[in-house]
Amino acid sequence: MNPYQAPLQDMQFLLTQVFDAPNTWEQLPAIAEMLDMDTASAILEEAAKLNRDVMHPLNRSGDEQGVSFVDGKVITPDGFKAAYDTFAQGGWVGLCGDPEFGGMGMPKMLGVLVDEMGYSANNSFTLYSSLTAGAALCIHAHASDELKTTYLPHLYSGHWAGAMDMTEPQAGSDLRNIRTKAVPQEDGSYQITGSKIFITGGDQDLTENVIHLVLAKLPDSNGISLFLVPKIAVNADGSLGEANGVTVGSIEHKMGLKASATCVMNFDSARGFLIGEANRGLACMFTMMNYERLAIGIQGLGSAQAAYQMARDYANERIQGTAADATEKRNDPIIVHGDVRRMLLTVNAMTQAGRALAVMTGKQLDLAKYATGDIQQKAAKYVGLLTPVAKAFLTDRGLDATIMSQQVFGGHGYIRETGIEQLVRDTRIAQIYEGTNGIQALDFIGRKVTGDDLHALSLLVDDIKVELASFDKIKPEDKQAVLSRLDALMQTAQFVNDNKAQHPALLNASAVDFLDAFGYTLYGYFWLAMAQQSHKVEDKNFTATKQYLADFYINKLLHKADYHLAQVNAGDSSIMGMPAELF
Amino acid sequence: MNPYQAPLQDMQFLLTQVFDAPNTWEQLPAIAEMLDMDTASAILEEAAKLNRDVMHPLNRSGDEQGVSFVDGKVITPDGFKAAYDTFAQGGWVGLCGDPEFGGMGMPKMLGVLVDEMGYSANNSFTLYSSLTAGAALCIHAHASDELKTTYLPHLYSGHWAGAMDMTEPQAGSDLRNIRTKAVPQEDGSYQITGSKIFITGGDQDLTENVIHLVLAKLPDSNGISLFLVPKIAVNADGSLGEANGVTVGSIEHKMGLKASATCVMNFDSARGFLIGEANRGLACMFTMMNYERLAIGIQGLGSAQAAYQMARDYANERIQGTAADATEKRNDPIIVHGDVRRMLLTVNAMTQAGRALAVMTGKQLDLAKYATGDIQQKAAKYVGLLTPVAKAFLTDRGLDATIMSQQVFGGHGYIRETGIEQLVRDTRIAQIYEGTNGIQALDFIGRKVTGDDLHALSLLVDDIKVELASFDKIKPEDKQAVLSRLDALMQTAQFVNDNKAQHPALLNASAVDFLDAFGYTLYGYFWLAMAQQSHKVEDKNFTATKQYLADFYINKLLHKADYHLAQVNAGDSSIMGMPAELF
Repeated sequence: MNPYQAPLQDMQFLLTQVFDAPNTWEQLPAIAEMLDMDTASAILEEAAKLNRDVMHPLNRSGDEQGVSFVDGKVITPDGFKAAYDTFAQGGWVGLCGDPEFGGMGMPKMLGVLVDEMGYSANNSFTLYSSLTAGAALCIHAHASDELKTTYLPHLYSGHWAGAMDMTEPQAGSDLRNIRTKAVPQEDGSYQITGSKIFITGGDQDLTENVIHLVLAKLPDSNGISLFLVPKIAVNADGSLGEANGVTVGSIEHKMGLKASATCVMNFDSARGFLIGEANRGLACMFTMMNYERLAIGIQGLGSAQAAYQMARDYANERIQGTAADATEKRNDPIIVHGDVRRMLLTVNAMTQAGRALAVMTGKQLDLAKYATGDIQQKAAKYVGLLTPVAKAFLTDRGLDATIMSQQVFGGHGYIRETGIEQLVRDTRIAQIYEGTNGIQALDFIGRKVTGDDLHALSLLVDDIKVELASFDKIKPEDKQAVLSRLDALMQTAQFVNDNKAQHPALLNASAVDFLDAFGYTLYGYFWLAMAQQSHKVEDKNFTATKQYLADFYINKLLHKADYHLAQVNAGDSSIMGMPAELF
Repeated sequence: MNPYQAPLQDMQFLLTQVFDAPNTWEQLPAIAEMLDMDTASAILEEAAKLNRDVMHPLNRSGDEQGVSFVDGKVITPDGFKAAYDTFAQGGWVGLCGDPEFGGMGMPKMLGVLVDEMGYSANNSFTLYSSLTAGAALCIHAHASDELKTTYLPHLYSGHWAGAMDMTEPQAGSDLRNIRTKAVPQEDGSYQITGSKIFITGGDQDLTENVIHLVLAKLPDSNGISLFLVPKIAVNADGSLGEANGVTVGSIEHKMGLKASATCVMNFDSARGFLIGEANRGLACMFTMMNYERLAIGIQGLGSAQAAYQMARDYANERIQGTAADATEKRNDPIIVHGDVRRMLLTVNAMTQAGRALAVMTGKQLDLAKYATGDIQQKAAKYVGLLTPVAKAFLTDRGLDATIMSQQVFGGHGYIRETGIEQLVRDTRIAQIYEGTNGIQALDFIGRKVTGDDLHALSLLVDDIKVELASFDKIKPEDKQAVLSRLDALMQTAQFVNDNKAQHPALLNASAVDFLDAFGYTLYGYFWLAMAQQSHKVEDKNFTATKQYLADFYINKLLHKADYHLAQVNAGDSSIMGMPAELF
């Protein structure tokens, strides 16, 4: 397997040319004082080296060895602890954290690119730090100053890790039925008792402590509250005290992500601290969930990028068959074959557009956090709109990409040693956890599109139209191809909005197709934007590549949007009609 | 995990009502003397029991334990040997074999349904016998009477197994470059020397002998010949003699199919016997390949059916969330949710139509073998046309089905214990081996459609149109929906045929999309046929279910054909234009 090479040129192109990071950052004082584009490039290069040299070499061995569970302790694969220390000491866990508590204060539009590298290099490894960053974000947004001061520096430094404890056997997508209890104590803390399942990084041997964010119910309340529960109690002076009644019941044996511990966590009168208001825990947890949703979308993106590199290298090296236009039989690399090219182009075009979606969502997160006035308000709306799309579309297309890349390998793709099948197994979960992609789609069409009476969607579509009009290097028919899908998308959204009251199941039944239609249309815009801005790059091969890929996307992939729109417009009667007992 | 339940009512419906097996068989004397519909039903019921009670219980344990390779010997998982003996003693290996040599002489349209059950119950187990049946078919078609008499009875009885030895490290999809040598001996036999990889069932501990069909080159020849090479030499009296220089080098560690041995085979001056003419080995091997291609298509179908049952049962049992039309919050099974229903309906509609494709292909194989005159000739054409479609479309949709079914399970679908993730891993290879689905699609559009100047395709389309016209229970607009796709398909085929000379890469670049367009269109016809014929069934629930599913297919899935046709009609320039170094 070749070493992972981060697509630095593509990443820098998206930041500088497509999403105008230098000007954006200059206008946001909190960011401007932390970095400029040169610093950003240096950070990307450092992250690329770290992922290539430290994390990627542990990816296959981590899959083969897996985590183990011995005498109540989780043991990560050989090499993970040393790699984690290197990663933590570099300050990467706190990359986007608040400098007041020891974070590096970097913008999210840079952070998403570092995250992508991590998921390309080593899905399992990267999850540990991703959950820590998410937990820190939630604590930063909702916890008391005392909790922030006590916990954030240790989380940003990577000495402690974070975990998100929501699911119980009877309460997964629907959290109403959780049974974990929180009993108030005289000192203002709570005793937490209950069991949680599917806890990613619930425990490990990488950090001194694990800080659990636990959903639980107060006595005589059906509301859900959020608690901070350390595995090891923290003394008043910040040193570690006694074990806190937090134990691992078992770890799961999974299809993939074998080096990431998925734990059953037991809380036995563990001492916890309320985060945010009582009975408002879900709203607080959603700060973390939204962060994780984007991060998990990027898991799909990172897997897709890694798969593409492997398949492209293999297609250039593997000799088999003869090009269709050759005048005599000879032995060619398989990249000459139309079907192999079709697969590589599809994966490449979808992945590069996916990266644009990640950076755009990161930019809106930065604007929502650091900008003011109308810009801030619009950005907050866009974050709401784009987050479920980034989670679902990037992970669904991520699985497509790994499977298509595996296909390029032929029989060798099914052999574990080759490594590509691990990407399929590792990325499959990303469509499921942090809210299944069906749940994301329902959030998108139900809350973010029709729940907002199409307001945010209209704003975005209008913004895109204005931008398209300004593109002077793009053929009118290509602009028209995207414009017509934007209009069809709005009409379809209107159809759903108009009919959702009469057809209560319409939202749920058409959610996934609507999200997919939106994704394919948005990617059409991204490709025209990338083709337009590629003319600013001096490297002629770079510009040509973007033109070829934009052409491929518009000709070959964009009309997937039509299929998905047709699905939505066909309504829900053929889905809801059949009685359950006839299935 | 619930026990596997074969969909017997659906199977019998396809045989009797949709594909008219009783009349077909009555008109074919070789079949008529072997069975009627009652016998066929009894065979299906027996196979259902065997797969439910014997093979399915070994599916998970076989995956966990896997095959091992100790001291040069392959060891199958616990229970496989006893189950294999039960299977062989029941005569199932020779189900469709020639009665003259001990086969049961059953028609393929029955055989495909038995195969489906095997792949639903236990993919790994069923591969062993499937390759044996394929090897027997090849020997029956091309070998000398002496070889037939010596080998066929032992293969049909399951005492010996068969394997197909084609691939070498440098020669996979393109067999021109194989290096295995065959040196003629004075007694008319050959000494075979070389190495083969990816040999499914290359060895095991289930049978006394393994009969390898090996592709090799004669001295000073670039032609490829086919040889029968037993692992253990067979004496003149039919008893087993010495080891024959056939050894296992290693076994592969794979994504799935862990209980099926995939071997590196070494032939060291092994004694072999020519099958068919010298330098015509590929043509002979294709008899086996075509058989295996249909069988592997059915692997996809069987996996899809097993996945559907699991997902449906889970959706009925798992309580989470509230139906969209409920007036108060309550706890409902997830089958009330539109998105869950969408997934289940998609898997179910695609799988039932897939079964129709398998039975139709089986029927054409029977007619090609047992009928005479025009019927025989047309059937032979249809076999050629349908085989690559059955292989590729059934396995591509098989993977879709397992992934969609896994999604219904949410987080539980990622846990090995649940069993659904094994189906994803086991069926993934079916898109690759026996010729990748890209190769199938190229065979379809290149040889079977345009290579035949659209003749076979036109015949089939015309036959379907005549049948559609006769359906009196189908709405005109539903007929029109299928008819318009049939016309678009013919126009698209014509476009490719007209342009293939000018655009030599067009066939390869558009092959997969053309095959998919054909598949989705054909399934539209199958659903109207099933809806039409369901009125002959007395069980009103059965009839209603077929109506609901046909409605769903026509409204929601058929227009996937439009997307794939648009892809083909967009030509190959955006695929072939980009230079390889820009990928």
